[in-house]
Amino acid sequence: MAVLKFDDVPFEQVRDGLQRKIIHLDQLMTVLLDFSDGPWEKPEPPHAHPHEQTSYIAAGEVIFYCEDEPEQHLKAGDMFFVPSGKQHCIRLLTPYARLVDSFSPIREDFL
Amino acid sequence: MAVLKFDDVPFEQVRDGLQRKIIHLDQLMTVLLDFSDGPWEKPEPPHAHPHEQTSYIAAGEVIFYCEDEPEQHLKAGDMFFVPSGKQHCIRLLTPYARLVDSFSPIREDFL
Repeated sequence: MAVLKFDDVPFEQVRDGLQRKIIHLDQLMTVLLDFSDGPWEKPEPPHAHPHEQTSYIAAGEVIFYCEDEPEQHLKAGDMFFVPSGKQHCIRLLTPYARLVDSFSPIREDFL
Repeated sequence: MAVLKFDDVPFEQVRDGLQRKIIHLDQLMTVLLDFSDGPWEKPEPPHAHPHEQTSYIAAGEVIFYCEDEPEQHLKAGDMFFVPSGKQHCIRLLTPYARLVDSFSPIREDFL
């Protein structure tokens, strides 16, 4: 079945305050991420991966940091993208936020 | 700048009742699609493309059809995916809906 119904598929607990649900094909993965431990005083540690990434802010507000670019205050409806290998991170500004991240190739480390 | 702020970037009009905003990298594209001409009596015509697709229902409700699979009633928070080459389409059940579609490789025909 080519669907993930939110009410039918349990979250995977990533850590305290972060849960996710994943769909993927061979070269494309999309991850629904629900953060519930905001707001954060500091950003998460910057990280990078060879996978290209796009993200849609479905709820909440974050600061998005990408290498030497100016920080960006993003809210529900906004999007960001991360080229292969670029250091990036977010800081949660709201108690709760939902990000919908897509990756190509897929994040084998998430499976 | 690696962001698309919803309030700063105008929609592209696809047709009456359908607008989109696009971000993309080399192998990954994400398209915010706002439909405003629902509900539809019938589904759109089925279509297929070699690109893999994932979709997040950000608002509204749709029926999702994918080849010979049973039709799926999806609502905000649900996701679907379309393997390369599979015939698929949706039917809008609500006046308004927002889908966030991702594709790999990118839809050159959208640029």
